Amino acid sequence: MFPRRFFKKLKRGPQVVLGKDAGAVLAYSGLSSGDVVLEAGAGSGFAAIIWGNAVRPKGKVYSFERREDFADLAQKNVEKAGLEKVVKIVRKEAFQGQRSKADLVFLDCGDSNLLIAEAFEHLKPGGLLVGYLPHVEQLRGFVECAVNAGFELELCLENNEREWLVRERGSRPVNTGLTHTAFLAFLRKP
Amino acid sequence: MFPRRFFKKLKRGPQVVLGKDAGAVLAYSGLSSGDVVLEAGAGSGFAAIIWGNAVRPKGKVYSFERREDFADLAQKNVEKAGLEKVVKIVRKEAFQGQRSKADLVFLDCGDSNLLIAEAFEHLKPGGLLVGYLPHVEQLRGFVECAVNAGFELELCLENNEREWLVRERGSRPVNTGLTHTAFLAFLRKP
Amino acid sequence: MFPRRFFKKLKRGPQVVLGKDAGAVLAYSGLSSGDVVLEAGAGSGFAAIIWGNAVRPKGKVYSFERREDFADLAQKNVEKAGLEKVVKIVRKEAFQGQRSKADLVFLDCGDSNLLIAEAFEHLKPGGLLVGYLPHVEQLRGFVECAVNAGFELELCLENNEREWLVRERGSRPVNTGLTHTAFLAFLRKP
Amino acid sequence: MFPRRFFKKLKRGPQVVLGKDAGAVLAYSGLSSGDVVLEAGAGSGFAAIIWGNAVRPKGKVYSFERREDFADLAQKNVEKAGLEKVVKIVRKEAFQGQRSKADLVFLDCGDSNLLIAEAFEHLKPGGLLVGYLPHVEQLRGFVECAVNAGFELELCLENNEREWLVRERGSRPVNTGLTHTAFLAFLRKP
Repeated sequence: MFPRRFFKKLKRGPQVVLGKDAGAVLAYSGLSSGDVVLEAGAGSGFAAIIWGNAVRPKGKVYSFERREDFADLAQKNVEKAGLEKVVKIVRKEAFQGQRSKADLVFLDCGDSNLLIAEAFEHLKPGGLLVGYLPHVEQLRGFVECAVNAGFELELCLENNEREWLVRERGSRPVNTGLTHTAFLAFLRKP
Repeated sequence: MFPRRFFKKLKRGPQVVLGKDAGAVLAYSGLSSGDVVLEAGAGSGFAAIIWGNAVRPKGKVYSFERREDFADLAQKNVEKAGLEKVVKIVRKEAFQGQRSKADLVFLDCGDSNLLIAEAFEHLKPGGLLVGYLPHVEQLRGFVECAVNAGFELELCLENNEREWLVRERGSRPVNTGLTHTAFLAFLRKP
Repeated sequence: MFPRRFFKKLKRGPQVVLGKDAGAVLAYSGLSSGDVVLEAGAGSGFAAIIWGNAVRPKGKVYSFERREDFADLAQKNVEKAGLEKVVKIVRKEAFQGQRSKADLVFLDCGDSNLLIAEAFEHLKPGGLLVGYLPHVEQLRGFVECAVNAGFELELCLENNEREWLVRERGSRPVNTGLTHTAFLAFLRKP
Repeated sequence: MFPRRFFKKLKRGPQVVLGKDAGAVLAYSGLSSGDVVLEAGAGSGFAAIIWGNAVRPKGKVYSFERREDFADLAQKNVEKAGLEKVVKIVRKEAFQGQRSKADLVFLDCGDSNLLIAEAFEHLKPGGLLVGYLPHVEQLRGFVECAVNAGFELELCLENNEREWLVRERGSRPVNTGLTHTAFLAFLRKP
């Protein structure tokens, strides 16, 4: 178990995938021990740690990151999480040299669309492609590309979590907070 | 991996815990292979299957259900999921006869408050208590009881997932859907 | 005052503009007695009645509707509201033969974009253009067209109202309901 | 018409009622020219200005405020809005010395419950009571008090507005913002 506060101790560089979005991926993928995950890019490594925790001890996460500074940061965070045997930060273009077929491919990078065809090749039949896409135009382009590449659309969603304060003086949602991170697109390889 | 559509094949009796809420529990608990989960009640067994999938192959889920009809339904669903070695549907008052200490206790029943003291005893130090509570008054009562029982409050939240339609004619959220299931309270045993 | 239940007595043909969206227009336009509103199309006349109520007794609403059946329905609803001296349902292409300059132009029709240039001409300086747009692509097209036509973008928003049940057994949001109607775009003529 | 930007020029003391909430009151009350509004407290006068704009030129808003500093601020803002003939800031306990019967009573103060019985007396038959209540416990107490005082419950709601960015690089909701202001309770005097 990684408690929520664990992530507060990690260093953050590029924007991280938050629990609300990672949770939707965990629930709708059914990721579990022994599964293989491909990811691009690694960013700060938060998502890779969450996938790594879900697939350990026998599964693997290959997280591709071409920026050296991000890869360094992600690597350090993975080590803090004690997951260096499960999560590999790969300093290459996605998905160069990748051999093992994946159960899940998670794409969170500026040019996610360009990786869809490769994602299809690296997924097992029945495997899941998930795009993490801040803008609606990206969501739409991703879905269209993926359907053209042979994927079946399962679901597009946004997840709006709202924290509540429960105190002596009364119960209410917090007054300010996150109102958007990204849209998630789930597509299945037949 | 359990694809999302798998749950569409299961029978539903009492209201089920949905992906958006189960996902938040997965993300904020960091549940993984080998962990032990206690649950009350089983309902249709959907939540138990999600926890079972997350902790397999070595972990265990003990899901307590005193209603025979619900227990029958949950047991069948667990078997359809092939998780009968991981998930035990226990036909007793929660948590009678329970020996193994738990990493996570998930309470989703009408009288969740009455189980908090027992939950504390059955959790490992650092273990997580999660309440699934439809009404704000239940949320508040649960948090107060749990803090009095020695738990530390981590977070209360509600999770509003919204499905999007991405089609030739345009992209938009669906027009109608779920607007509430339950509030989630996360408390930690010190 | 038109109580909310008044609208439940009106007949509905095409989809109506709801209180949550009309309210945002009222609040952000500051529409008041004596103002002039142009609208296309009339639909069931709900929005026209809300604008009419806000600008009466001296203001005027010209609601253009080219479909005879919708115009008939809207006319009947306006009469039920006792607003026939304030709200004119105009059975012409928008905004043919229109003379009085408007404080507010409200566009809710399939081809709203094609009316933007005319809306600009019919608005007073400082007047407000509001688009009611179900899809994000429509929202984007509308904003781009309007900015090209000389409007200044004030605000785009969506308004998610959630009803709450407050009962003996507890307080909670309703479980199901509307999750989307339309995006609203507010643009100002300089 | 008061454009949205007008409110940006006003001074703010105590927290103000925002457009999203005022809009819901406008839409569900059907407030219009000639109506009478009672309010407690005035706060910074924002809500009073919105009601004043909706009922002018013949209607009246009596906004009660016992704190001198708030009353001074509200008075100044009302004057900036040019509504001093429509909106009276009354420096008394609510609703002392009040004669004209009201179409709408809007309560936004710490002890709104204590004013419900008086609100009932000062409302015309069919008139509307609206409570603006930050906490769920306040919402519940308000509804119970008002029903006991003879009001009929119409609706409780919360209004979550989300701003959207529509730009060259894409369309998305803003990343952070308000996630809660208050719950609104609408009750009708029979």
